[in-house]
Amino acid sequence: MEPLDYHAEERSKASFDVEEMKIVWAGSRHAFEISDRAARLVASDPVFRKDNRTMLSRKELFKDTLRKTAHAVKRTIELNLSEEETHTLWFYVDQPAYANLHWGMFIPAIEGQGTEEQKQKWLPMAHNMQIIGCYAQTELGHGSNVQGLETTATFDPQTDEFVIHSPTLTSSKWWPGGLGKVSTHAVVYARLRTDGQDYGVHGFIVQLRSLDDHSPLPGITVGDIGMKFGSGAYNSMDNGLLRFDHVRIPRNQMLMRLSQVTREGKYVQSDVPRQLVYGTMVYVRQIIVSEASCALSRAVCIATRYSAVRRQFGSENGGPETQVINYKTQQSRLFPLLASAYAFRFVGEWMKWLYTDVSKRLQANDFSTLPEVHACAAGLKSITTSATADAIEECRKLCGGHGYLSCSGLPELFAVYIPNCTYEGDNIVMLLQVARFLMKTISRLVSGKMPVGTAAYLGRVEHLMQCHCEVQRAEDWLKHSIILEAFEARSARMSVACAESLSRFSTPEEGFGEISADLVEAAVAHCQLIIVSKFIEKLQQDIPGKGVKTQLENLCNVYALSLLHKHLGDFVSTGCITPKQGALANEQLRSLYSQVRPNAIALVDAFNHTDHYLGSVLGCYDGNVYQKLYEEAWKSPLNDTVVPDGYDEYIRPLLKQHFRTARL
Amino acid sequence: MEPLDYHAEERSKASFDVEEMKIVWAGSRHAFEISDRAARLVASDPVFRKDNRTMLSRKELFKDTLRKTAHAVKRTIELNLSEEETHTLWFYVDQPAYANLHWGMFIPAIEGQGTEEQKQKWLPMAHNMQIIGCYAQTELGHGSNVQGLETTATFDPQTDEFVIHSPTLTSSKWWPGGLGKVSTHAVVYARLRTDGQDYGVHGFIVQLRSLDDHSPLPGITVGDIGMKFGSGAYNSMDNGLLRFDHVRIPRNQMLMRLSQVTREGKYVQSDVPRQLVYGTMVYVRQIIVSEASCALSRAVCIATRYSAVRRQFGSENGGPETQVINYKTQQSRLFPLLASAYAFRFVGEWMKWLYTDVSKRLQANDFSTLPEVHACAAGLKSITTSATADAIEECRKLCGGHGYLSCSGLPELFAVYIPNCTYEGDNIVMLLQVARFLMKTISRLVSGKMPVGTAAYLGRVEHLMQCHCEVQRAEDWLKHSIILEAFEARSARMSVACAESLSRFSTPEEGFGEISADLVEAAVAHCQLIIVSKFIEKLQQDIPGKGVKTQLENLCNVYALSLLHKHLGDFVSTGCITPKQGALANEQLRSLYSQVRPNAIALVDAFNHTDHYLGSVLGCYDGNVYQKLYEEAWKSPLNDTVVPDGYDEYIRPLLKQHFRTARL
Repeated sequence: MEPLDYHAEERSKASFDVEEMKIVWAGSRHAFEISDRAARLVASDPVFRKDNRTMLSRKELFKDTLRKTAHAVKRTIELNLSEEETHTLWFYVDQPAYANLHWGMFIPAIEGQGTEEQKQKWLPMAHNMQIIGCYAQTELGHGSNVQGLETTATFDPQTDEFVIHSPTLTSSKWWPGGLGKVSTHAVVYARLRTDGQDYGVHGFIVQLRSLDDHSPLPGITVGDIGMKFGSGAYNSMDNGLLRFDHVRIPRNQMLMRLSQVTREGKYVQSDVPRQLVYGTMVYVRQIIVSEASCALSRAVCIATRYSAVRRQFGSENGGPETQVINYKTQQSRLFPLLASAYAFRFVGEWMKWLYTDVSKRLQANDFSTLPEVHACAAGLKSITTSATADAIEECRKLCGGHGYLSCSGLPELFAVYIPNCTYEGDNIVMLLQVARFLMKTISRLVSGKMPVGTAAYLGRVEHLMQCHCEVQRAEDWLKHSIILEAFEARSARMSVACAESLSRFSTPEEGFGEISADLVEAAVAHCQLIIVSKFIEKLQQDIPGKGVKTQLENLCNVYALSLLHKHLGDFVSTGCITPKQGALANEQLRSLYSQVRPNAIALVDAFNHTDHYLGSVLGCYDGNVYQKLYEEAWKSPLNDTVVPDGYDEYIRPLLKQHFRTARL
Repeated sequence: MEPLDYHAEERSKASFDVEEMKIVWAGSRHAFEISDRAARLVASDPVFRKDNRTMLSRKELFKDTLRKTAHAVKRTIELNLSEEETHTLWFYVDQPAYANLHWGMFIPAIEGQGTEEQKQKWLPMAHNMQIIGCYAQTELGHGSNVQGLETTATFDPQTDEFVIHSPTLTSSKWWPGGLGKVSTHAVVYARLRTDGQDYGVHGFIVQLRSLDDHSPLPGITVGDIGMKFGSGAYNSMDNGLLRFDHVRIPRNQMLMRLSQVTREGKYVQSDVPRQLVYGTMVYVRQIIVSEASCALSRAVCIATRYSAVRRQFGSENGGPETQVINYKTQQSRLFPLLASAYAFRFVGEWMKWLYTDVSKRLQANDFSTLPEVHACAAGLKSITTSATADAIEECRKLCGGHGYLSCSGLPELFAVYIPNCTYEGDNIVMLLQVARFLMKTISRLVSGKMPVGTAAYLGRVEHLMQCHCEVQRAEDWLKHSIILEAFEARSARMSVACAESLSRFSTPEEGFGEISADLVEAAVAHCQLIIVSKFIEKLQQDIPGKGVKTQLENLCNVYALSLLHKHLGDFVSTGCITPKQGALANEQLRSLYSQVRPNAIALVDAFNHTDHYLGSVLGCYDGNVYQKLYEEAWKSPLNDTVVPDGYDEYIRPLLKQHFRTARL
């Protein structure tokens, strides 16, 4: 029997080679193969089942996480997976777990901030998971402002120890993943005090729990911080709280690569350049941007497939209703998100190159590109994660009522994704950093300092302040050069306007505070330009496969023109384009939607998401949505019994009027 | 001892009479008193406790709902509450329950569509809750398009019965609240078939469950549809599925006020005007708009209070950091939402008048205002609920990381609120209806037909197409007449542009489909104008209380100018205002934020929300946030034991390297 495929007709309509597009999406054939294998491995393993996740109680869910984590470790050993394969397998297990922090934060912190001796001591144990660590930075009262942390590490020269202490309630460590119930160790960030002075925040390796019976060590109060957004989602993680009551650790557990405290209690800075930490930051943010494209592609895949199944209105002579994907209102909301998924994918890919490049430069003590790279990574992290969070919710809305069911996968995807907007740099704080960079860049133009990399266009600011968009017909908007110049001009003009506003305040700091909302908008414009320009650069590469490049051209144009429409006020009020040209862009956008439409299902197939990874009845590959919804419903815990628990106490007495007779 | 109040200083800064503002918010002194009493009644009753809600399993949560519902019924009887008081009490119980559908949909359906005889038979039983009913309209495959429903009700003249049947999987009733596990009866919407003909969708009273033992009657398959968005939230409700296998009901259970089937099976329309149903629609949507202001005010209250407690950066000489509410980025996101809460409150209040007015007219067979009223109610429902849903999530973000904790109250508020965007009319479908009305209104202008009510401004379209905004200085934007004309001109010009676009297509329907995204934007512009104009009308009333009116003036201006800034592209590209005037509006907005700032806490105090109703550690009245967060954390189910369940099976073996030795 032929396998059922409600999307078969849609798939046959595609005018490009989906298999080739899969390679483009994955980044390379190698990446595709690794990812495809890991996804199938996870999908076929019953331990990794996740369809029941939102129905589990917190304790059951947490135990499920412990089980999956242990199983994943076991499987990677049994299958002798490479590091890349292991990483990919964890990714597809798709359940936040303490292991993410152990591998992603605890170990890198020691690698980056530990001395050779410290690395030799701690890393082998950590790699073997003989100890499990977390990253204890954030405090109850202190997040983005790391310099405001209150936990203290006071050197006691008499015993050659640091005394770690939580002096106030707000100094309690709060949020670290894996801390609540699992970690045996933590890298704890605390204010270093020695020699009667406060040297600011440094990292310390602190053991939290006994390796024998897992009980917290003396002086340590540790626990879970409670329920978080959604069911399932991040509740699989034991985000924790931690308080220290004068806990003593040996001096050599301070991470001493960048600075040391001597036996005598003297604070000494090493000659290792501090800038090296920025390399790690770029690395982490590149991963976040890549993961944004993954999360977004998931949501878009679900919404696109279901929009092709779902029909509403427009029935003629009693025939079937119209597929909702055919409505322009649906297309104008969905296709820009589809285009964004590809846009974020490519800018994430480019950031890998950026990381390699900056790492090489740092090795060679070349710090010249660092401010630009730092602003770029902060800005891209911010706008891709914010856009993805909003897009997941928009995709849920695009699925109508059924998107609200947990089995649509979208509620949990939203709940589990949104912390990306906060961790590793709050998104608004990030944009303000970008804005500072832009203001500095502009102020230095007068002294002839030419900006580099993604800010290079500001070197042409004079031209960009006065250029006129040449669009006369809707099709003119398909030219890369025209799109690029419009986005460059918009960004440059918004930045320059901010710089001019700043100059009217008595101090730059006062001005920066006062016009910060405008600065954020200028930063967004700059970052959107980066994404548009990297998409265009991608298209200048050789892209094989029948029709693949044409599709990407369309998506690039959809991405750029839908942004232009959304931010029309920026473009028109800065005079970059005329209202008429804005209307032409909108017209061109509509015609692009018609070109995307027949390829939409194939374009989401190209993400190569398994049904397991998608975790959505609405997004299933074969489109057999209604049958699956119906089957899923019967799994509801309330359907365990025909008559619900509580009927005898709370329903029957109502129906039988017992309250009335008893009380009145 | 003085009660603790971390907000005392903030409260002392307010320059208006908070108690008087509470009356303005409530609508009247009477409304305030009813509401205040009910809120306290609920807050002080341990049965109505909800702080543990997100930790309950689905079954526990559902049983908790049954318990609260029975208790609420008991209390209303014991306290002999009036209908208004009862309604307010249910509101403050704040947990979706089958009773909402019984009182809010089942009973009104019989009242509106039943004959006198039917009302006499069914309503007393329903009012006494001897039967419990729900409203079974939506089907698995059919939502907004009611005419597409598939369930059939075929008249059998031999037995004088209707046969209710679900012919397909997609015809399964799906979503009705209270259906899954509780309702004994339902008003079922089905296609009426008699005399060999299909007469479209009609309502039928169908018994679903035995009144003796609650088991489903023969031919009836009924159950819960499963988990929904979030923890707690709407999972307290048994949204259900329902299938009929040739279920027979007596003919007189068809709701026959508007049309009847005779004993012989003849279909007869009564002479009751069909337009009467629109009255109910306006009523329901007015309630939804009022509730939008409640939900929004809750989120804003939480975010505002916590923004005054939370401090970040800006510490000078080791002093305390800056309250985040002092940052312009925070103000520019938060204060427009605060203003929106008040704006939605007043437009909701005005809709009560609109309902009374249209009801009177309908009674007098005057249907002249109906299209305008219908468009107005649909549009306001759409934009207030969409804006509120987005605003709740924005408020969560404004609380930083801690907003992600369930105990912030915001995740559950978001999850429980968002269905408002879908039920009682999908928000996009609603806006398309508004757009149709606008296009029709404009096309009739040429024949001299003058628009009425909220569309009256379109009668001045010639002036609005060419008027120029007179703003020269930022303060000019404080004039109501200037704001109003800018919003009127924007809306009129966007509608006229759409009408012109439509005329270029070969058929209006084709054009309507093609430019539907533009039509939605024009509809939004029209609805925003309504809200701005009703806020301005409110300010023309006599408003007592020291400084109260000044505050409302500020909020009205914040509301209008923040919309103008957000939709700058509309205003500038239609030439309603110049880019320079847009910049002046933004400048004025910043200065308004400074005026709102010292009053912010008092402005959210005026909502008079109890800590119970808010359900948020971050929003608590006394501002003792960190202490409460810390206490709340220890309630986490994971903290029941020091060592987590699963340690022996899944953590210890990892630490002890058992997998490695066993397997390799």
